[in-house]
Amino acid sequence: MTVMRGRQFFQNPGPTNIPDRILRAMDRASMDFMGKEFAEIADFCFAGLKRVFKTKQTMFVYASNGHGAWEAAVVNLFSAGDKVLVLETGRFSASWGEMATAYGLQVETLNFDWRTGVEPAKVEERLKADTAREIRGVLLVHNETATGMTHPVADVRKAIDRAGHPALFLSDTISSLASIDFRMDEWKVDVAVGGSQKGLMLPIGMGFTGVSKKALDATQSATLPRAYFGWRLMLGRQPQKFPGTAPVHHFYGLAEAIRMLDEEGLDACFARHTKLGEATRAAVRAWGEGGGLQLYCSNPKLYSDSVTAILMAPGIDAEKVRIAALDRYNVSLGGGLDSLKGKVFRIGHMGDLNEPMLLGALACVEMALKTAGIPHKTGGVDAAMTVLAN
Amino acid sequence: MTVMRGRQFFQNPGPTNIPDRILRAMDRASMDFMGKEFAEIADFCFAGLKRVFKTKQTMFVYASNGHGAWEAAVVNLFSAGDKVLVLETGRFSASWGEMATAYGLQVETLNFDWRTGVEPAKVEERLKADTAREIRGVLLVHNETATGMTHPVADVRKAIDRAGHPALFLSDTISSLASIDFRMDEWKVDVAVGGSQKGLMLPIGMGFTGVSKKALDATQSATLPRAYFGWRLMLGRQPQKFPGTAPVHHFYGLAEAIRMLDEEGLDACFARHTKLGEATRAAVRAWGEGGGLQLYCSNPKLYSDSVTAILMAPGIDAEKVRIAALDRYNVSLGGGLDSLKGKVFRIGHMGDLNEPMLLGALACVEMALKTAGIPHKTGGVDAAMTVLAN
Amino acid sequence: MTVMRGRQFFQNPGPTNIPDRILRAMDRASMDFMGKEFAEIADFCFAGLKRVFKTKQTMFVYASNGHGAWEAAVVNLFSAGDKVLVLETGRFSASWGEMATAYGLQVETLNFDWRTGVEPAKVEERLKADTAREIRGVLLVHNETATGMTHPVADVRKAIDRAGHPALFLSDTISSLASIDFRMDEWKVDVAVGGSQKGLMLPIGMGFTGVSKKALDATQSATLPRAYFGWRLMLGRQPQKFPGTAPVHHFYGLAEAIRMLDEEGLDACFARHTKLGEATRAAVRAWGEGGGLQLYCSNPKLYSDSVTAILMAPGIDAEKVRIAALDRYNVSLGGGLDSLKGKVFRIGHMGDLNEPMLLGALACVEMALKTAGIPHKTGGVDAAMTVLAN
Amino acid sequence: MTVMRGRQFFQNPGPTNIPDRILRAMDRASMDFMGKEFAEIADFCFAGLKRVFKTKQTMFVYASNGHGAWEAAVVNLFSAGDKVLVLETGRFSASWGEMATAYGLQVETLNFDWRTGVEPAKVEERLKADTAREIRGVLLVHNETATGMTHPVADVRKAIDRAGHPALFLSDTISSLASIDFRMDEWKVDVAVGGSQKGLMLPIGMGFTGVSKKALDATQSATLPRAYFGWRLMLGRQPQKFPGTAPVHHFYGLAEAIRMLDEEGLDACFARHTKLGEATRAAVRAWGEGGGLQLYCSNPKLYSDSVTAILMAPGIDAEKVRIAALDRYNVSLGGGLDSLKGKVFRIGHMGDLNEPMLLGALACVEMALKTAGIPHKTGGVDAAMTVLAN
Repeated sequence: MTVMRGRQFFQNPGPTNIPDRILRAMDRASMDFMGKEFAEIADFCFAGLKRVFKTKQTMFVYASNGHGAWEAAVVNLFSAGDKVLVLETGRFSASWGEMATAYGLQVETLNFDWRTGVEPAKVEERLKADTAREIRGVLLVHNETATGMTHPVADVRKAIDRAGHPALFLSDTISSLASIDFRMDEWKVDVAVGGSQKGLMLPIGMGFTGVSKKALDATQSATLPRAYFGWRLMLGRQPQKFPGTAPVHHFYGLAEAIRMLDEEGLDACFARHTKLGEATRAAVRAWGEGGGLQLYCSNPKLYSDSVTAILMAPGIDAEKVRIAALDRYNVSLGGGLDSLKGKVFRIGHMGDLNEPMLLGALACVEMALKTAGIPHKTGGVDAAMTVLAN
Repeated sequence: MTVMRGRQFFQNPGPTNIPDRILRAMDRASMDFMGKEFAEIADFCFAGLKRVFKTKQTMFVYASNGHGAWEAAVVNLFSAGDKVLVLETGRFSASWGEMATAYGLQVETLNFDWRTGVEPAKVEERLKADTAREIRGVLLVHNETATGMTHPVADVRKAIDRAGHPALFLSDTISSLASIDFRMDEWKVDVAVGGSQKGLMLPIGMGFTGVSKKALDATQSATLPRAYFGWRLMLGRQPQKFPGTAPVHHFYGLAEAIRMLDEEGLDACFARHTKLGEATRAAVRAWGEGGGLQLYCSNPKLYSDSVTAILMAPGIDAEKVRIAALDRYNVSLGGGLDSLKGKVFRIGHMGDLNEPMLLGALACVEMALKTAGIPHKTGGVDAAMTVLAN
Repeated sequence: MTVMRGRQFFQNPGPTNIPDRILRAMDRASMDFMGKEFAEIADFCFAGLKRVFKTKQTMFVYASNGHGAWEAAVVNLFSAGDKVLVLETGRFSASWGEMATAYGLQVETLNFDWRTGVEPAKVEERLKADTAREIRGVLLVHNETATGMTHPVADVRKAIDRAGHPALFLSDTISSLASIDFRMDEWKVDVAVGGSQKGLMLPIGMGFTGVSKKALDATQSATLPRAYFGWRLMLGRQPQKFPGTAPVHHFYGLAEAIRMLDEEGLDACFARHTKLGEATRAAVRAWGEGGGLQLYCSNPKLYSDSVTAILMAPGIDAEKVRIAALDRYNVSLGGGLDSLKGKVFRIGHMGDLNEPMLLGALACVEMALKTAGIPHKTGGVDAAMTVLAN
Repeated sequence: MTVMRGRQFFQNPGPTNIPDRILRAMDRASMDFMGKEFAEIADFCFAGLKRVFKTKQTMFVYASNGHGAWEAAVVNLFSAGDKVLVLETGRFSASWGEMATAYGLQVETLNFDWRTGVEPAKVEERLKADTAREIRGVLLVHNETATGMTHPVADVRKAIDRAGHPALFLSDTISSLASIDFRMDEWKVDVAVGGSQKGLMLPIGMGFTGVSKKALDATQSATLPRAYFGWRLMLGRQPQKFPGTAPVHHFYGLAEAIRMLDEEGLDACFARHTKLGEATRAAVRAWGEGGGLQLYCSNPKLYSDSVTAILMAPGIDAEKVRIAALDRYNVSLGGGLDSLKGKVFRIGHMGDLNEPMLLGALACVEMALKTAGIPHKTGGVDAAMTVLAN
């Protein structure tokens, strides 16, 4: 058995590479979560999170992963039997809907072609048809990690507005936050759901929700039972009262992540992801010219700059590429999820990433395609380099 | 403003000192939580947790703090309107009851004197009186972190048995686990709730429940809505399917914690805590001879070996001691919680602790008593040394 | 075999406790030692070292321990056959003289009683007698780590001046630097020798020399062969040209150490050491009242605030205390060196140390005295607390 | 000013990438360098170093960089006026000779074309001509870091043997050790000089010499003064007595490095370097087809597998490539040293390196060539991938 040497290239679409600075910031003794020093750290983090979410409204932090933040959005806003409209565009939007179902909501799913993505006009149409205003919430995943597509939150917002519908607008920004522009207040998102382990470059274990005034009002009448994720309790102290002990170490890391984002600037950070995303797509297009593989996303307006899903030609097992990259070249890619298992593999390119990291990974993907015997053209890395050198 | 130098002595009763080995184990790159290497780590951790809980039954791990694990116990076992009996012995048992109330359970509280603790005979009496078997669960906190008392789980079990009552028996072992002996299977505890940041010496962010066969059966008919903390989903994979991304870094740390516990041996670990607890109590008794302060726990059978609460004489503010120790000597103690605020301060002595750490802390408490002008006798450290040198 | 838990109390008089901040600063990737970023770090470090040495003259840094810096002092200033006067006050001054002998210098030793220390009047007398001005250098160890005594560099300087003698004045400040006041320029020290692992709180591996203009001039005519430690080469670049690769990681740590010293302030740092030193001596005096042990230093003007040597009564093995403290209580003390082996043990109290750390250690020394069956009085910790609480 | 994100690719030919495992092993509290635990670590390290040097003879470790180990070789073996023969093949062999000159040795230099390397026949010829056996030592650098060439130590040994010459044979293995096969005993090398910061993957600060029985005998009559690097003192304890304090933290790291080398196996490690070296050379050849640049080494038998030097066409500044790679793509390359400054740039490929790391770096070099406007062909990365995918 070969022992691997050198650094693993971790190109999963989450968790992502954690910068040394963040790991070192978390490699620190505990502190009193009710003391002054922690209060300063927490204040800095809440303010920073609001800058990242682009909101001036309320922020809640959970000792949980992103699914916990999903749950917080559901249990604080609704009552059993409430109807919500899930805009299904992939695995994660479907899962969020399942969670709502588990909580006794009436979930109506608006299905979109996963490869072309959400159509705001259909959302408008459905909401207009809801003359009884039964739909209490619209759930959209901004960036579908399973398909590598970024859905137009602003356009869906406009569709809701055009329909004049009062439903709360919930958006998952887990795999877009701090990688792709997200504007909670400008887009009038009522609850924006984030997690620590993607663009925020932290270990798993912290969930976030930005919450609008309208959503906070809605929580007054929501009757789903809640405690751990309950906002009412959390409002009992500034910036937030925690149920139990606050996740001190994740706050250490979050503070460092925010410092890093402040240094780079969000716009520069988004531009970097755009370039890395384009380079990845250029590589995939080059490999796929012969027809063996292609970008899963077939709607060029919705390419994700944080993750790319690659669809194999029928009969070709995507897992072979993933395993060859991992076992032979120490490059960890994402596989296809559920119905896409074996059909796609995924390259994450979010978080703490730069040109040599991406090119090293793409080069090994190209070699893994060869190793795995997948029909493909060479030249993918060259195509990516052409993008990046400009 | 004086700059502190040297290491802070962190004698809070949670979170606790994190050993360097564990911090370093967590100072590591992400890995694929669906890959082989993580599977091996997770298997090791689940097996180790079962040794620590002394159970061969089912273990669930949550990306949450201990309150999340409390919630898991509530939502998986019960239905709205179910009656549970909370054995109130302090702040944390009360809180657990409040959480049950939030979930729509009918909570009956059996109040015990917080300074003398649970009386199994009264539990037996109450359960015998429940001829309709309305009580579905009995909730007990093994070690009350707020009062520094360890309640006799085994005796309560016997009381339930004597009453022949079928209620589920739930025990919080958050601040006793891996510090004070806890035997889930032998004591027929149906759900044992633990957290990462006490005797397991980890950062905050991981909750645990040991779950009996009987409890797993009960979950079939329980109708409280649940998703993030739902066991059904988790049973879908071995050792556990996670809702969302598994908390990889906490598993890194947990594996190291288990290795450390295996090296020392649980019995040696418990004996160490007993000695450190006795030394702490000897110091408090010496300080308190003149009447200025005393052990909060007035029932010698229930002294906790992981945390000691010290009750001040009427009119004396316990916060003065806590603040003097912190601001002048860099020793972080616990304050009194809620109704005990200002009345007690608390010395944690659980987790990765040894003689010089405890004695350094106790010496600074003794100096802080002087600094704060609290009436006390000196000689506390000497008394502790007498215990520890034997 | 018992497994130790909790932190080891490392009370050796070097290396010392390394603060987490410094360890974390060194836990970092390599960088180009010829690049801009390293140049900035090095500039900051050289400037900071000059503040610590209290000199505006030249500073050289070596990839070596303190013995390397001793060697640099010898080989750059002298020629074979040159006479130097070693003021022998303990093991380390003797060793420095042996090194000079190895380099072919004619070493004359002025022996002082190790327990009462250097007498400037005798130095003056000897230099006055050197009418031929054969003595080219006077070597003094500021703080004798073996005996726990701080010699009066300023007074020796005055003795040299009173003798009107042109000899170069060399002082080892290895175990005093950044713990006890040292003033290179004010005291007209020509070469001041320091190391990384004491008051600078770093790992072993960096040596320093502050070098006066007069010493730099002397190096022109010095004919001892030299390369690795040769100053001429080092002057070839600003702040210094390194022979081979510069010790990048130690510079990372040194920069953090300087930041910590800047935050605290040197005066506050010295005052802290004075208090900790006094507390240690108070403990020793209390233990020794019955005659079983005493301070090795019998000259109260020369007590060292960075290390205390404790002399046992005749026939009592000091190693027993050291071993009991280490094996039973995880407190690492220093033993006696060479001729003092078994006769003294030593408590280091320099570097990153505070009250609870020292008191925890002293308490365990007191327990170790008991464990080892050494005749002593109790009450040492109480005496130390009395000092520290004032 | 652009803030860099992601990991810097550190392709300097020393110091090299330090694996996280080694950084974490060094991120640890001090320990008593005279205690049992350190003795075990040191024993393990000395035994491991001997496996790496492939010697069963004596090993000395220095708290210094590689230049210190050079100096140890010189001062322990020779007396002033002794003649040594330096086989000059590049900057580092020249420097070693300069150090010998500084120590008063009579240095005779046998100059070889730096691009074709050492010719054993000329060595044989010169030694045969030395009928008076005046030459006391032959100095060879195994792997010239400045030129990217590996000289045939075994062949030079044979040349010495054919000449029947008794001179000591000294070889610098600093940039080959643990990357390229080196066999001290088989090749009858009398002193082999190594450093920590190349193939051993450690920070700078540790030097090594493997020393033959013959060399140890020679030290008896050598009269150069020495202390810090003196072997006599070091032989006073097993495995070694240190002058002053032993470099504890580097031993922590060295132990981990040896464990990593043991896991991979030296042969696998060398094979990995061979493949990475070939890939690098394939890339350079592809870029250089048009004549703009070429491998500095023009002797295919002597290609180094740990570092490649690339020679620019006349009039083209190599620094432009180095700076473009660093400033634009965060890839740190080596520049040309001294007479080669501006003429070559260098790619290190030793130590903890794998395919994606190298390919990421090579891709950025290719982009830097474009950015810097250097005439070159594209396709370098493709050529490297072809090598690596086989």
